[in-house]
Amino acid sequence: LVNEIKHSRLSAGRPIAILHKKFADKNGLHSGDRIVIKKTKKKSLIAVVDIAEGMLKEKEIIASTEIFKELGLKENDYVEIQLATVPRSLGIISEKMNCKTLSEEEIHQVINDISKNALTEAEVAFFVSSIYKCGMSMHEIEDMTRAIIDTGSRINLKQKIVVDMHSIGGFPGRTTPIVVAICAAAGLTMPKTSSRAITSPAGTADALEVICRVDFTIPEIKRIIEKAGACIVWGGSLGIAPADDKIIQIERILNIDPEAQLIASIMAKKISVGSKFVLIEIPYGKFAKVNRKKAESLRKKFETVGKFFNVNVECLLTKTDEPIGNGIGPSLEIRDSIRVLRREDECHMLTERSLSLAARILELAGKTKKGKGLKLAKELLYTGKAFKKFEQIVKAQKGKIGIIPEAKFKHNISSTKSGKLTLIDVKKINSLARVLGCPLDKLSGVYLFKHKRDRVKKGEKILTLYSESKLDLDEGIKFYKTEKVVTIR
Amino acid sequence: LVNEIKHSRLSAGRPIAILHKKFADKNGLHSGDRIVIKKTKKKSLIAVVDIAEGMLKEKEIIASTEIFKELGLKENDYVEIQLATVPRSLGIISEKMNCKTLSEEEIHQVINDISKNALTEAEVAFFVSSIYKCGMSMHEIEDMTRAIIDTGSRINLKQKIVVDMHSIGGFPGRTTPIVVAICAAAGLTMPKTSSRAITSPAGTADALEVICRVDFTIPEIKRIIEKAGACIVWGGSLGIAPADDKIIQIERILNIDPEAQLIASIMAKKISVGSKFVLIEIPYGKFAKVNRKKAESLRKKFETVGKFFNVNVECLLTKTDEPIGNGIGPSLEIRDSIRVLRREDECHMLTERSLSLAARILELAGKTKKGKGLKLAKELLYTGKAFKKFEQIVKAQKGKIGIIPEAKFKHNISSTKSGKLTLIDVKKINSLARVLGCPLDKLSGVYLFKHKRDRVKKGEKILTLYSESKLDLDEGIKFYKTEKVVTIR
Repeated sequence: LVNEIKHSRLSAGRPIAILHKKFADKNGLHSGDRIVIKKTKKKSLIAVVDIAEGMLKEKEIIASTEIFKELGLKENDYVEIQLATVPRSLGIISEKMNCKTLSEEEIHQVINDISKNALTEAEVAFFVSSIYKCGMSMHEIEDMTRAIIDTGSRINLKQKIVVDMHSIGGFPGRTTPIVVAICAAAGLTMPKTSSRAITSPAGTADALEVICRVDFTIPEIKRIIEKAGACIVWGGSLGIAPADDKIIQIERILNIDPEAQLIASIMAKKISVGSKFVLIEIPYGKFAKVNRKKAESLRKKFETVGKFFNVNVECLLTKTDEPIGNGIGPSLEIRDSIRVLRREDECHMLTERSLSLAARILELAGKTKKGKGLKLAKELLYTGKAFKKFEQIVKAQKGKIGIIPEAKFKHNISSTKSGKLTLIDVKKINSLARVLGCPLDKLSGVYLFKHKRDRVKKGEKILTLYSESKLDLDEGIKFYKTEKVVTIR
Repeated sequence: LVNEIKHSRLSAGRPIAILHKKFADKNGLHSGDRIVIKKTKKKSLIAVVDIAEGMLKEKEIIASTEIFKELGLKENDYVEIQLATVPRSLGIISEKMNCKTLSEEEIHQVINDISKNALTEAEVAFFVSSIYKCGMSMHEIEDMTRAIIDTGSRINLKQKIVVDMHSIGGFPGRTTPIVVAICAAAGLTMPKTSSRAITSPAGTADALEVICRVDFTIPEIKRIIEKAGACIVWGGSLGIAPADDKIIQIERILNIDPEAQLIASIMAKKISVGSKFVLIEIPYGKFAKVNRKKAESLRKKFETVGKFFNVNVECLLTKTDEPIGNGIGPSLEIRDSIRVLRREDECHMLTERSLSLAARILELAGKTKKGKGLKLAKELLYTGKAFKKFEQIVKAQKGKIGIIPEAKFKHNISSTKSGKLTLIDVKKINSLARVLGCPLDKLSGVYLFKHKRDRVKKGEKILTLYSESKLDLDEGIKFYKTEKVVTIR
């Protein structure tokens, strides 16, 4: 079949050929199919089919810039197309779907294809499903970790003691800025890469972005670390784990997170930035990703993978059943962290949690003896050294700790009765923050005046809703009224 | 977030909003995410995000025609966007992923969303995976069958005895045209809808298309059946089972075909065209989709679903381990069928198989007593009545049985030794035909001169390769030489 090729400055990140619906129907081609596009005997490439109408004529193909470059095409050239044979990765994914244990080479093939954008989203979804269905052996997890590292960029830091932390998320509240500031103030190197909100109202990157930049190149990050000893940046555009970025994007759809993938994903990112000491926080409980038992099993697996790669991994299991800070939403959460660092506000749980995380890292990296970490962490926080370090980091990231503005619209919610606050439904409060505009509108969110087990009087303020849009604020109020976000008994 | 909206005559079949890569990165949006697009307080819709560069500016959105129509937008209008909440179907798919039994209402919700194109391909892949992982109860299969029927179009025929057949495919060789011709010659009404090639070199629709049209509207199909008593058309564009069409497209990726989906898919299509008597051929064996045991279990399930819907279902289990006809490829396969109908060629296995399928349908629909079906089928074939009927069908479908041309290039393969042909690797011969250009180039393919258990002399012709492209022919020859397609001992 010979077709005329058109170009519409479509840069899709991979070879995509848009065919006309009629042409596709006639030839039994579907969106997601792979075709071979040939210009000459020697030059051909495989592209994924997309289907449209109206943008092109029946015998035309709109090709992404990748196809033009690779084949050396000009506008209105003619090309031959043919159904492509199936990429090897799909055979491997099929076998994993039937619970076969994959070899190192097979895992590398799939991860490499994903990192090169050679698999479609549906294909990655099948890969995720196969891991979810069948699990992975410790050796498969090791191989996957290695494959993710090998297909991504690395950050090589000359400093000796590189530490890192990660929390198996889900709870609003930013401990990371506080922990990074304390550890860096103790002289540790901490190249923290963070994510943006996935299903939560804010990721650490979203929160930091309220006061400084978070998107940097790897050389820029090295300079930031040279200046401040640490960074808190968005990991998404660094290409440290491109396969993993893609897999996570697909996992978000059903909010499933197969254990094997979770471990390989976190460990690969820590190893790629050269961390030698890694603390993993695993919150467990009703609203957490895992229960106590699962948390214990995760702990063992993380530590085992750490040993495979010569990294000292420690896991901290924390029973968590409510938001850790008062604010929920990018700006409200970073404001909490700054208040703790400045010692302006208690934010009791946020302070406690941050101190105990920092304490473990200080001990793990040998900055102090076992059992003395908390004392050192408190000292660094209470003397203002941690805040000074935080200011340095923010400055190196082209920002400034000024006054964080309030959202345009707000609405206070007061208790309709007296009693004890017995439950904050974390899933619902996260949804509420998203209804209000999180994470895209950074000033929106919820501020809690009460926490679990607090006494509340009738008419007393429990929380404030913030939004940049009157429309969203109204929807948030409606949401609060219809859903049981907070329970007072 | 407020964005300017652009339109580029993109008719994607569903609301798609293309965002600029930079804008998406900054706001943590990924391809496949859902956003709410709002024009006014009252008018909003949910669209799926796609990401590009170069086609648009950072703050622009290219929106598909569906969005323009639904929101009443004009070029350069400004719209608000926001992350959308998760569609209900995804929660249901999550639950199925954890093997929950779904209710009728839940299955309907998912199938309805799929039929309306409201789920992305990755989301459908997760649904397929969940069925593959957990299976479905008979009641879930019943509910899925009903949901597929309810979300699609129907063909209401006034004729009383509507029959149909389906083969759980995989083997080259077109029995369908022969069976339809015999049954229609006996006075039965047979509205046969067929598919195009999925993983095989040719589907029945691809083969028929060599001599007549196969894409018709439902009113046109009714007129064809009025004239000829039967049709053999492509089912893909009729909208009889739009959810199923989409699901099958995703299943093709890994060539997985969860049993529950297979049964619901076939039964829904048969019921939607009003069939009261349905024959299902289930080939089993080495190269078939199922083994004998699985075939028996399928038989029971098909018959059970038949009872739920008051349809008389019979399954014919056939041990099959080689191509049924001599030709492999659209034109070579239909030529075989025509030769059998014209009694020009034995095509032994194709004749036998077609007669036994037709015999069962004739008995099932009461055209003859049990045990007398084969006699009647032979009579209709041998007297030329079946061929006359086939000519009527092809004429009603705007075609003509002329001489089928040969491909531009061909190459004979002869045996390098004397012996017995012990194996034709069906998977490899299918791949060979695809390398030669099938199914897109209809004249390409393979023609077998020998079948399993035949004696072969050294130098005797075993098969001929056909292609429309010298390049593909060379690749086919190379494929034949490197892969063990045929074994002679």
